[in-house]
Amino acid sequence: MESPLFKLCSSISCTKTFLQPISTVNSPKLHSINKRKKLVCSAPSDSNSVCSGGGVFLSIGTHLIPHPNKVEKGGEDAFFISSYKGGVIAVADGVSGWAERDVNPALFSRELMAHASNLVEDEEVQYDPRTLIKKAHAATSSTGSATAIVAMLERNGTMKIANVGDCGLHVVRKGQIVFSTSPQEHYFDCPYQLSSEAVGQTYLDATVTTVEIMEGDTVVMGSDGLFDNVFAREIISVVGSYNNSADAAKALANLAYDHSQNSKFDSPYSQEARARDFDVPWWKKIMGMKLTGMK
Amino acid sequence: MESPLFKLCSSISCTKTFLQPISTVNSPKLHSINKRKKLVCSAPSDSNSVCSGGGVFLSIGTHLIPHPNKVEKGGEDAFFISSYKGGVIAVADGVSGWAERDVNPALFSRELMAHASNLVEDEEVQYDPRTLIKKAHAATSSTGSATAIVAMLERNGTMKIANVGDCGLHVVRKGQIVFSTSPQEHYFDCPYQLSSEAVGQTYLDATVTTVEIMEGDTVVMGSDGLFDNVFAREIISVVGSYNNSADAAKALANLAYDHSQNSKFDSPYSQEARARDFDVPWWKKIMGMKLTGMK
Repeated sequence: MESPLFKLCSSISCTKTFLQPISTVNSPKLHSINKRKKLVCSAPSDSNSVCSGGGVFLSIGTHLIPHPNKVEKGGEDAFFISSYKGGVIAVADGVSGWAERDVNPALFSRELMAHASNLVEDEEVQYDPRTLIKKAHAATSSTGSATAIVAMLERNGTMKIANVGDCGLHVVRKGQIVFSTSPQEHYFDCPYQLSSEAVGQTYLDATVTTVEIMEGDTVVMGSDGLFDNVFAREIISVVGSYNNSADAAKALANLAYDHSQNSKFDSPYSQEARARDFDVPWWKKIMGMKLTGMK
Repeated sequence: MESPLFKLCSSISCTKTFLQPISTVNSPKLHSINKRKKLVCSAPSDSNSVCSGGGVFLSIGTHLIPHPNKVEKGGEDAFFISSYKGGVIAVADGVSGWAERDVNPALFSRELMAHASNLVEDEEVQYDPRTLIKKAHAATSSTGSATAIVAMLERNGTMKIANVGDCGLHVVRKGQIVFSTSPQEHYFDCPYQLSSEAVGQTYLDATVTTVEIMEGDTVVMGSDGLFDNVFAREIISVVGSYNNSADAAKALANLAYDHSQNSKFDSPYSQEARARDFDVPWWKKIMGMKLTGMK
């Protein structure tokens, strides 16, 4: 189970705060059989000030747990962080299928991230994550392939993201996820991937999005090792429980690892597989086996 | 069940195509109990050309089905479209709770959209959807509140989106959703909403995102009446089945309506409610009742 993970917070002049989700347990209308929207019941929104120009930067915590079977080689994920401008974060996940061809899947992802780290301030990149992926991919000579995501934050609060494959990024604001990237795949368990081979994807396949980061937001980035094993509501809960980025990153990575090791846990990956009519054969179920996100 | 819906396609010099998802039925590895990523198996990505400057515009189809109990008043949703620049689309969903105060929930959403439509080319708006929401909200004098989403496409392919509440937008590319907005809510069934009251949200609460639209993309926008009743995989399937925007919009709206009227259909809304520990009481279940997205 690989899960490099970043937890980032814009922390400018004000104190960074993580708000808990509003409890709905006592709401009397929730047992209606027809949905009926309620009137707003919140405080005025003036307290929501958009991060102003020149002020935003990222408070970063990271934690990586390699797959138990890949500890000796350090796992197949790689990442880098940079404090350039508002901050740059990136994750690459080496495609494990290369091991079947006696290729270490970690080499490609590590070299890709090393080049990306060195190219962050490159003139041609012009702080554009898709261009950074283009140049880092072109510079990578290792055999293999990897999914990759890069996010670059401007000081004015604009975070630009380029994503190829099934790494991901969530923005948590006031106890809810207000932005998420979407994974790209050819079919189940075959994600879009930057590759040393001609059939792979390129920077042109990256989904390019931007999101306006606000004061106090938390950005959670990880490989699918995180998002296959931890539900969004769990990410929100953990983010709301820690003020320290490093502690929260460690807690999320540990939660993903624990879920991946729990054969009884019905993970997001397992649920998605069933929703798409994939599951273990009946005879494996009798043996207590199940489709899991453990990788 | 209210579902104003847009299906938009960037159609520049080339022919617009909707690709079906790649079948995985015969994949031999899907019964493994451990997830193992497969190597890429696609054609090269050179065919993915980013929409070039000056070329992109939206081919629009719309379809609205009012809630059966609200047909006489035309429902509580409103929307507008504009061909300005690459195109502008917007949806507002009047908050039904106002009916309890003898206020027609449709008035606020309709006036909001009317002002937004008139302000699209306003100098101060500068083609920024959050500013458009700010000015349209300020101009709206009706009592009530509404969720709202506005998307504005530049000719260079950049679509900027401002969203307050639980309307939504998906971008479908090559048989998969590559971008989705995230709903904002105070608690279950109480979405963020622009309001005539001081406690409501403002443009500052809007989640502001952008996505780079590519040739052949399909953009699906709707109120929660669509997304509470139709799964993402169903949206992808419908989008892949029609070349005509109007036909696809009608098919999606009809599917949402049919699901909302089917007491046996386990909708996205029903599943989300259960995941958050909300459901009908046991004695209602005995009577065959269930929590549904029918509104």
